[in-house]
Amino acid sequence: MTVGDQVEAKGRDVFDSDCPAREVLNHITSRWAVLVLLALRGGPLRFHQLRDRIDGVSEKMLSQNLRVLTRDGLLDRTVTPTVPPSVSYDLTAIGREGVAHLAELTEWITRVAPAVQAAQERHDTPDTPPTR
Amino acid sequence: MTVGDQVEAKGRDVFDSDCPAREVLNHITSRWAVLVLLALRGGPLRFHQLRDRIDGVSEKMLSQNLRVLTRDGLLDRTVTPTVPPSVSYDLTAIGREGVAHLAELTEWITRVAPAVQAAQERHDTPDTPPTR
Repeated sequence: MTVGDQVEAKGRDVFDSDCPAREVLNHITSRWAVLVLLALRGGPLRFHQLRDRIDGVSEKMLSQNLRVLTRDGLLDRTVTPTVPPSVSYDLTAIGREGVAHLAELTEWITRVAPAVQAAQERHDTPDTPPTR
Repeated sequence: MTVGDQVEAKGRDVFDSDCPAREVLNHITSRWAVLVLLALRGGPLRFHQLRDRIDGVSEKMLSQNLRVLTRDGLLDRTVTPTVPPSVSYDLTAIGREGVAHLAELTEWITRVAPAVQAAQERHDTPDTPPTR
């Protein structure tokens, strides 16, 4: 199975705005969804634990992302009937598959971040020729 | 090298809003950047070729993403002094590494898109119990 077959096949592919895979790609790679999925890699978390783990996320954006990912079947939402009720989120089997890919991407990004920062500095330094 | 070491290490990691890796993650996984990088997997393309390949992207968003990815050192921008000048974009070595991860993620997404659509339909059907 190659990228040629899967991603660039003629017909509908992620480059087409009405392709179902494009919608899933947008959900999974959205700014907060990536971090929600990665945060749940260690096991289920409650809403406030996710909010505290993901620096900068608003409760509104977190709720919205949790709703989308649950609807997509990537997360399970479990309500425990305590007083007050306790709501927790966990990866489904399919969510766990997806987060494995995201973790590989993120590990690579963590490794190359210094090189990217160096490229940004070269680009922003007026004395050196611009990046071609 | 595990996710524990790289992604969830205490100190600064992608969960921290001021971590350099978080910025790179946001750039690479942004809605249009993913598609720009994937589109260039087959070789260099000119601006209008990218615009035509990526359904729904505006020229403004495409320009902005090309600028960010070039500054990050993921793309090379080459100006050929024809009349009018011709500008093309290509993956750098580091960009090519990144797009390999994105292609794996996108191939997986293309495979699971039908399952995600089925989960969405189950979730939206009021006669079945909601997804837990």
